[in-house]
Amino acid sequence: MAEEVPNPPVSLGKNQASGGTARALGLPDTAFEQRRPLRGQITKREVRALSLYSLGLRPNSVVWDIGAGSGSVAVEAALIAYQGAVYAIERDEPSLSLLRRNVARWGSAHVHIVPGEAPGVLEGLADPDSVFVGGSSGRLADILRALGSRLRPQGRIVVNLAALERTQETCRLLRGLGFTTEMAMVSSARGKEMADGTTRLESLNPVFVVTAWREG
Amino acid sequence: MAEEVPNPPVSLGKNQASGGTARALGLPDTAFEQRRPLRGQITKREVRALSLYSLGLRPNSVVWDIGAGSGSVAVEAALIAYQGAVYAIERDEPSLSLLRRNVARWGSAHVHIVPGEAPGVLEGLADPDSVFVGGSSGRLADILRALGSRLRPQGRIVVNLAALERTQETCRLLRGLGFTTEMAMVSSARGKEMADGTTRLESLNPVFVVTAWREG
Amino acid sequence: MAEEVPNPPVSLGKNQASGGTARALGLPDTAFEQRRPLRGQITKREVRALSLYSLGLRPNSVVWDIGAGSGSVAVEAALIAYQGAVYAIERDEPSLSLLRRNVARWGSAHVHIVPGEAPGVLEGLADPDSVFVGGSSGRLADILRALGSRLRPQGRIVVNLAALERTQETCRLLRGLGFTTEMAMVSSARGKEMADGTTRLESLNPVFVVTAWREG
Amino acid sequence: MAEEVPNPPVSLGKNQASGGTARALGLPDTAFEQRRPLRGQITKREVRALSLYSLGLRPNSVVWDIGAGSGSVAVEAALIAYQGAVYAIERDEPSLSLLRRNVARWGSAHVHIVPGEAPGVLEGLADPDSVFVGGSSGRLADILRALGSRLRPQGRIVVNLAALERTQETCRLLRGLGFTTEMAMVSSARGKEMADGTTRLESLNPVFVVTAWREG
Repeated sequence: MAEEVPNPPVSLGKNQASGGTARALGLPDTAFEQRRPLRGQITKREVRALSLYSLGLRPNSVVWDIGAGSGSVAVEAALIAYQGAVYAIERDEPSLSLLRRNVARWGSAHVHIVPGEAPGVLEGLADPDSVFVGGSSGRLADILRALGSRLRPQGRIVVNLAALERTQETCRLLRGLGFTTEMAMVSSARGKEMADGTTRLESLNPVFVVTAWREG
Repeated sequence: MAEEVPNPPVSLGKNQASGGTARALGLPDTAFEQRRPLRGQITKREVRALSLYSLGLRPNSVVWDIGAGSGSVAVEAALIAYQGAVYAIERDEPSLSLLRRNVARWGSAHVHIVPGEAPGVLEGLADPDSVFVGGSSGRLADILRALGSRLRPQGRIVVNLAALERTQETCRLLRGLGFTTEMAMVSSARGKEMADGTTRLESLNPVFVVTAWREG
Repeated sequence: MAEEVPNPPVSLGKNQASGGTARALGLPDTAFEQRRPLRGQITKREVRALSLYSLGLRPNSVVWDIGAGSGSVAVEAALIAYQGAVYAIERDEPSLSLLRRNVARWGSAHVHIVPGEAPGVLEGLADPDSVFVGGSSGRLADILRALGSRLRPQGRIVVNLAALERTQETCRLLRGLGFTTEMAMVSSARGKEMADGTTRLESLNPVFVVTAWREG
Repeated sequence: MAEEVPNPPVSLGKNQASGGTARALGLPDTAFEQRRPLRGQITKREVRALSLYSLGLRPNSVVWDIGAGSGSVAVEAALIAYQGAVYAIERDEPSLSLLRRNVARWGSAHVHIVPGEAPGVLEGLADPDSVFVGGSSGRLADILRALGSRLRPQGRIVVNLAALERTQETCRLLRGLGFTTEMAMVSSARGKEMADGTTRLESLNPVFVVTAWREG
């Protein structure tokens, strides 16, 4: 399926694409097939890295990736939670077929695709240790409420937000459910080599990463 | 040793501090004891996350952390490379005792502390899959040359730089050794709750993260 | 009064301090005496520059600087609006004496200090062409409503905000009053020369600059 | 000529376009006709504001705008230096015709267009108080050397740079000529209203603004 990846900037090597335990963490954005035309954006490397890091993943974590999209967070989380289970939840049919292809290519046996809409579809799943919410769907309040009762002790929730106004609402909802929150705005700029050999910085748009956990 | 961590903002839970496989990825900056007065800075969470992610870690990776400082990258890398080995190299004696305490607290059995100066001290170590260079010591050119011959196929090098001028030199050196490089400048701002309930953004200083690998 | 300016990094020259028309635009932050201990912050150079620029100043503009603080915006605006009038409004007594000293030092004859609280104190002033609101006081809604009826045709309002949540509220209030708004988040980092001759970037905190005007 | 401005977001009013002293400072980026296809970029509002501010403009300043491009800095500088003279220097023929049209539209009688290449073409001009260098042409070293001998006492030089590597070279050249330098990296993100009423931040690429002056 290698021909589906546009402009792969990183040579991943034979054994990296095997889907086995030998695959390396840190896939480039282009490793994930995306929707054409783009509908929403893949979580960018820099933001994916911080989001994965903030999920507090353990080897045996149960992870929910709500609004999994292209699956970039799910397949990477599975590498760290190698004895756990990752549930990639997606309601949108065209996104689901992408998700299936990306998980087939990069995922491992413990990444499970869950078609359907949160919070309803969450009921049948094992309680999570780590939950990633990839975008602010229209049902954020309902989803966070469901997480409030389902998240295991020591668990973490990570929400990515592009909309300035949602940060306040998200933090307030989470605190109302007894969570402590912290927020980081990640602004990254990538070096781009120019024809004259100099380097310019090309900015990515800022993303807000909200992390929530319960004290004690 | 819990009293040595100033202002731990995150309750890590009993089993997280055990040093066993149950510990979660994503420690707060305050989990790591630092030098007082501060001499250089711990790699901040947002930058640590991207650096770890970019190292291309696998379960069985051999990792070198050159200029390991407080050990924040080494102990986190060991969680992802759970069947591998992490060598934390540090030449500075006061930093070494810090490093020993932090690794004792958060690390696992496959984090090995290596006192001494790179590149000399690297000779006795197993060839690495992933190398993190935490700062631009005065011997960057020598270190990168050593990495050029020691890094395994599919390996990755990640260099963190605060100095604007070093990015050009570092990328040029790495390309001269046959590496492809990419660079990201990471600027992060953390939300701070004010007395009136509003949130302000407090910026961290930008850090340049250079990643290098060989094509093919 | 030169001894009151701590660490003036820029030699301003004899004729620059005369308060006459020969003074140059672009004073350093240290040109303005500030409260000790600091209560709130002077508008930083980079943000002051964009705020002044966005005010749409003309040679004969009537300018209101609401919450003038140290007066940095008022004295600079007066240089561009050299045939106009600038009203620096401040309610806080200790800030007022600072404001008086800074205006005496850097201002010109057409900078007028107005002690008191907006919006009440605005009633006696000439209708403005340009209004700068330097901070989100507790009376922002009342102030913006007053501006809605007082601002002259072609006029501009510029609001500086540190609080993330205020941007939404401010833009919504302004649009409710018939204004078009635009917002920029300004993040600046200053080069700092290190002992080893390299340059590091030191970030200032992001500030939101909202500009409002009426179409037509 | 109003039809040449694409998507003017700001209604400028009848008297603003008259080119007389009544025009306001703070033109939108779209006020300036640009080359199609774009060759290089107009100095963005946020950077133009800081650059103008840093030039240390006085009412009677003599200003050089080297590599004037679309003329955005020249026409704005002329509004502040209303009793002075602004020389807009440009060597590129297609850019020159754009420059002529933009100056005709927004400029005033004391903006002078100077076709030709710096530093050669600078010889016939009056010594400057303020010099803006809009881009790092291939002759930066020669230009800065010429400025070193021509800049008047109290004068300021402002250089805009996109290339990371040029900042070091530029500052070193300027310091070698006896100047004190300061550098700011300006990163701006503009609020963009989404279809659902929320606001996202769209980043502009960072620009380095180097300011130079002589102490004493």
